[in-house]
Amino acid sequence: MIDIVIGIDLGGTNTAYAFVDIKGKLWDNGSIPTQTHEHFDDYLNELFSTINLKLENSNFNLIGIGIGAPNGNYRTGTIDDAANLRWKGKLKIVEKITAHYKVPVKLTNDANAAALGERLFGGAKGLSDFLVVTLGTGLGSGIVVNGNLLYGHDGFAGEVGHIIVRPEGRECGCGRRGCLETYVSATGVKRTTYKMLAKHLNTSCLKDVSFNNLNAAMVAEAANKGDLLALEVFAYTGKMLGEALANVVSITSPKAIFFFGGLSKAGDLLFDPVRETLEKNLLFLYKNKITLQVSELGDDAAVLGAAALIWNDQL
Amino acid sequence: MIDIVIGIDLGGTNTAYAFVDIKGKLWDNGSIPTQTHEHFDDYLNELFSTINLKLENSNFNLIGIGIGAPNGNYRTGTIDDAANLRWKGKLKIVEKITAHYKVPVKLTNDANAAALGERLFGGAKGLSDFLVVTLGTGLGSGIVVNGNLLYGHDGFAGEVGHIIVRPEGRECGCGRRGCLETYVSATGVKRTTYKMLAKHLNTSCLKDVSFNNLNAAMVAEAANKGDLLALEVFAYTGKMLGEALANVVSITSPKAIFFFGGLSKAGDLLFDPVRETLEKNLLFLYKNKITLQVSELGDDAAVLGAAALIWNDQL
Repeated sequence: MIDIVIGIDLGGTNTAYAFVDIKGKLWDNGSIPTQTHEHFDDYLNELFSTINLKLENSNFNLIGIGIGAPNGNYRTGTIDDAANLRWKGKLKIVEKITAHYKVPVKLTNDANAAALGERLFGGAKGLSDFLVVTLGTGLGSGIVVNGNLLYGHDGFAGEVGHIIVRPEGRECGCGRRGCLETYVSATGVKRTTYKMLAKHLNTSCLKDVSFNNLNAAMVAEAANKGDLLALEVFAYTGKMLGEALANVVSITSPKAIFFFGGLSKAGDLLFDPVRETLEKNLLFLYKNKITLQVSELGDDAAVLGAAALIWNDQL
Repeated sequence: MIDIVIGIDLGGTNTAYAFVDIKGKLWDNGSIPTQTHEHFDDYLNELFSTINLKLENSNFNLIGIGIGAPNGNYRTGTIDDAANLRWKGKLKIVEKITAHYKVPVKLTNDANAAALGERLFGGAKGLSDFLVVTLGTGLGSGIVVNGNLLYGHDGFAGEVGHIIVRPEGRECGCGRRGCLETYVSATGVKRTTYKMLAKHLNTSCLKDVSFNNLNAAMVAEAANKGDLLALEVFAYTGKMLGEALANVVSITSPKAIFFFGGLSKAGDLLFDPVRETLEKNLLFLYKNKITLQVSELGDDAAVLGAAALIWNDQL
């Protein structure tokens, strides 16, 4: 028998799962569409059937199930009003999965899961104090301090994307203004592109693209070809992130910061200005101590992170 | 025999110590001047002699010694280049006190000690996630998460006073600009008073006071008498603190925030605008959940907090 944890990454479009051993090896994996069912219970039943087919006649010994999900709350075991899920209210996912499988089940949000995955299976092995920043449509963060995820009293700690960096700044989906993720995220890059198009007279290939057709990868591609406007977009984005991270460091003093998610594929276009601005803005106590790096987990990061929720307790 | 921890508050002017039992009761206390000796070892020898006199023929059973000191580093046990001490470099205070007394000795900075003291003996009993903000000449902070002080990888976490809240803002003693403590501290209140005097034509009793003669208590007194300019100073100070705390909450999600130190005596003059701005700026997840309160520890807070460093490990 092989001791296995099932890691589940519940996303807005698909739910990916994987059978992960304690070394982070995937023995099997798959996915189902997330939102074909009107009722959350029907979705769960489909997930159970799919997983049970793989468990039957296997030599897997199921140790537990870890779930990463938007607005997943570690303390309550519920998914609370996730913007990109059709089911609203508090979804008691931990209670329901526990009832079915009778093994330990744990839930957290995707960024926290990524941080735990990085610690168990990626570049943060042996680190007790670090930060993972996920750069996708928004900006998520998972913070590990003293060897544990920072959850806060209510399970909602670690919302670095919603630090207000510019009072009266850009409108945010959260209803406030000037949040970091309105500047630093794939969406933020789009908005900054239009800011720069308004500001400058440069020729730029980005002038031919509508707001709705633009994406961050196109801006990165333009920058890599030397498009000055696109380069300025990344310089601006990196500066905003570096400034904000300098403040986060003043609070948690991490040894390393890992980046993950689509926008992190922009690489040094983004990270050079982040590094420069971070060091420039750090209090002297923290200067030249912090490593910035891209996550070592590949495309399986989300399910590995979810599985790490359980494996972490076995160490 | 009474089990006793000695709490030592090493300040720039005086070193206070107290014999504290597990309930936070002071059985004896006293102080020596901090900086009469050119050499740190001579200072320590005076401290040892003073304490030993009280230990001899007592019925105290010494359990350990806790120290709160400026730039006191929990991880290294050293005081590192404290601005207000005459001895520079890394002072190996933990090693030296341990060698003398052969009991567990722990060191941290004053704000961290205050946080532990609040948890063991004050208003934070039973809380696992909270924040203590010390408002004195500067702004210090001690952050408790998941029941433990947040030290970071190097022992220097929790420098909320050095969050940059206004890029290109006021010059700070740390060499950067726009740090929170340049706005929110006794010194910050003085600076804001002069900002408001420059801005407004109001009559104000503060117009008769030079910068060097002004202190925060005078501004508070003027505000309490209805001086409009002084009232605006506190409104501004509270707004700056509320904005910054909203960002700290996004990172650590505390259940409560405690205030301590000279400036906190301004009371609701300061806390009303803090509360209003904090709630206004919080991400929806955190609204109407956080308690703001003044520390329940009185004048003995510093020595109680230092003693809590040891007592905390006995619980």
